[in-house]
Amino acid sequence: MDLKKDADRIIKAALRKVMPDEAVAQALTGKCFHEGSVYLVAAGKAAWQMAKTAAAILGDRLQAGVCVTKYEHVKGDIPKVQCFEAGHPVPDDNSFRGTQAALDLVSDLKGEDTVIFLLSGGGSALFEKPLIPGQELSHITEQLLACGADITEMNIIRKRLSAVKGGRFAEICAPARVYSIVLSDILGNPLDMIASGPAYPDSSTCEQALAVAEKYRLRISGQAMELLREETPKELDNVETVITGSVRNLCLAAAEACKELGYHPMILTDRLCCEAREAGSFLASIAGTHQDSQQSLAFLAGGETIVHLTGAGKGGRNQELALAAAEGISGLKDTAVFSIGSDGTDGPTDAAGGYCDGCTKERLRFMGIEIYQVLQDNNAYMALEEAGGLIKTGATGTNVNDVAVLLIKRGCSRCQAGTAYGSQ
Amino acid sequence: MDLKKDADRIIKAALRKVMPDEAVAQALTGKCFHEGSVYLVAAGKAAWQMAKTAAAILGDRLQAGVCVTKYEHVKGDIPKVQCFEAGHPVPDDNSFRGTQAALDLVSDLKGEDTVIFLLSGGGSALFEKPLIPGQELSHITEQLLACGADITEMNIIRKRLSAVKGGRFAEICAPARVYSIVLSDILGNPLDMIASGPAYPDSSTCEQALAVAEKYRLRISGQAMELLREETPKELDNVETVITGSVRNLCLAAAEACKELGYHPMILTDRLCCEAREAGSFLASIAGTHQDSQQSLAFLAGGETIVHLTGAGKGGRNQELALAAAEGISGLKDTAVFSIGSDGTDGPTDAAGGYCDGCTKERLRFMGIEIYQVLQDNNAYMALEEAGGLIKTGATGTNVNDVAVLLIKRGCSRCQAGTAYGSQ
Repeated sequence: MDLKKDADRIIKAALRKVMPDEAVAQALTGKCFHEGSVYLVAAGKAAWQMAKTAAAILGDRLQAGVCVTKYEHVKGDIPKVQCFEAGHPVPDDNSFRGTQAALDLVSDLKGEDTVIFLLSGGGSALFEKPLIPGQELSHITEQLLACGADITEMNIIRKRLSAVKGGRFAEICAPARVYSIVLSDILGNPLDMIASGPAYPDSSTCEQALAVAEKYRLRISGQAMELLREETPKELDNVETVITGSVRNLCLAAAEACKELGYHPMILTDRLCCEAREAGSFLASIAGTHQDSQQSLAFLAGGETIVHLTGAGKGGRNQELALAAAEGISGLKDTAVFSIGSDGTDGPTDAAGGYCDGCTKERLRFMGIEIYQVLQDNNAYMALEEAGGLIKTGATGTNVNDVAVLLIKRGCSRCQAGTAYGSQ
Repeated sequence: MDLKKDADRIIKAALRKVMPDEAVAQALTGKCFHEGSVYLVAAGKAAWQMAKTAAAILGDRLQAGVCVTKYEHVKGDIPKVQCFEAGHPVPDDNSFRGTQAALDLVSDLKGEDTVIFLLSGGGSALFEKPLIPGQELSHITEQLLACGADITEMNIIRKRLSAVKGGRFAEICAPARVYSIVLSDILGNPLDMIASGPAYPDSSTCEQALAVAEKYRLRISGQAMELLREETPKELDNVETVITGSVRNLCLAAAEACKELGYHPMILTDRLCCEAREAGSFLASIAGTHQDSQQSLAFLAGGETIVHLTGAGKGGRNQELALAAAEGISGLKDTAVFSIGSDGTDGPTDAAGGYCDGCTKERLRFMGIEIYQVLQDNNAYMALEEAGGLIKTGATGTNVNDVAVLLIKRGCSRCQAGTAYGSQ
């Protein structure tokens, strides 16, 4: 019973269903636009794939486009579309250059023109024209990342320091219509938060921005503090928005794949947001309790956990989650926990996430590696590499958060009926 | 639909089933002992109740006994049994006096004599004869508590600094037989860890003890360090042990009570051991995902979470768990999370735990109280008191860890069939 093979199959099947190609195709096919010109702006980690699909569908109808995505995410030329690769999670000069190209494209449009705006996760960093010096913006972003601010809090700050976020991009497009196609990477899909909502009215307030600044004792200039006090657009009448993919789809697809492999799947949540290693511990504690099950079980938790940096090692939230779970499932038979980021890049690493089973802890200990120490150092990548637990998919081109899965495999599970885990 | 009333009923019903009285009665009724004298030693938070029941059942058969429990846990005289109240979680002089009385009782017994040893949680601190000065022992215990060591790690250290732990008490009783009745407060019921296993062979090693000391950079004397290197008994042939209650029973009883109130219960785990506030966040994230359920749901997680002290406020792990969940379930309809310690005293407070629902966060905010700040200050008691969310049961006399419950109440749940939360 090779659990690692099951994990690989589940990952492959789940990712296939949340690829941006199909999502964009569904949103564009048969869609009619006004008589004017059609432009395309794509931003985010999935921007290239989304833009490529959109350009293919639009064909001659497309006038011109700009695509801004993460480094190594441009996989080839797209006719009429200028592609930029830029910094993520910290924006850099290429982010600003790409965004300026997009702004040049959509300024001075007419009322009958249309801007197809393809948005995906990572857009906050990739689609940016800062109202403060780029260096200070980087510094603020780094502070927020290091102190464990969640993505919601980060965006509240960043949209006020930006000329394009919080609905401001759509204001620039006006009077042209904006058709916004969104691949959601924020739990619960709040449209004004995804990529900081360049084409959506902003529901966050200056008051909240100032509260975040205080909560994390951000070190910022007087100029930036002034901007936190400036309100963003609360109404936009030229925008239509459709959400084409989210973590819910990822969980459902993974659950479906589990089922096909004989597991009885249960989606616990699609909005996990606690500390990565504690989520791993929680999943592991579920594993211990359900060892007596007669049928194979899969518990799924989608969302986006957080990591508080306490060390200078290499890793990511999915890797930390899996490694922390290894501690709790140590010694358990045919039990595994894996977790992946759907974008294929977990933290600043080349892995999508991590896989651990009941033998991982022992295997690491044999090599003199203690899990608690590794987690303290935020060095999960190293430990998982040693244990053969790195999951590498390469950049997937999509980004709909993460999914963590606990697998408990039992013999001949297809023969079993009923549920093994009730209160009985 | 009053969720608080449901919570109160579930708590009452669950606690009733894990009271020590019945457990001890079951273990003793019909039990035959050798011809010699029968002595009784009871230690732990449930010691008084266990001793009272045992003394009543044994009647004339009982020669004499000693009972050591927590302050305010002795509820009256027990014939032939000398009762002591002592410090917990940090042992004090009364712990040492009570333990010495027990040792005086069981020293110099004969082979036909029997020692009935009633053990419950808290025994590590309450049943103690340190091999180092009491002050240093207190200091080491405080260090371990403050740095978030789990109970397993604490016991590995403490049993080596003690004349009674790690099987050493049973050695002193020999050649008399020891009949050990255990109310388990450690997840998975490792008998050598419950109250540091005074009457059970010790499976932990000096090597592990030294690793814990290094992990938390304990400040200890050379004498104590020397003791960490001395091995404990690995075999004991005069002991018989029976476990009479555990967190598993608590979870099952709570699930049964949920069912009677119309909830579809699911025990996620009976060995939860992650950070309290993160467990609360995890449960809350489950709540958000299952709001569309047609039937009422209850998710249960038993175990013992941990708290890392970052502030000087007042609270306990169950209170922190519930309050952290309030953040995540804010605004959710007919949804509540509560968590209690079965001993009725959560942390150094007079509350058993906490209760929060979808309105708690808003109610607190109205009073100018921010949950994240309260958690940072470890001040959950204050916030829950303001929100009307403190659960007070008084000292229950039992101690089988904690249980946390997420309730999602839906109309006419008894009419619904099937399960609402699968992958479908």
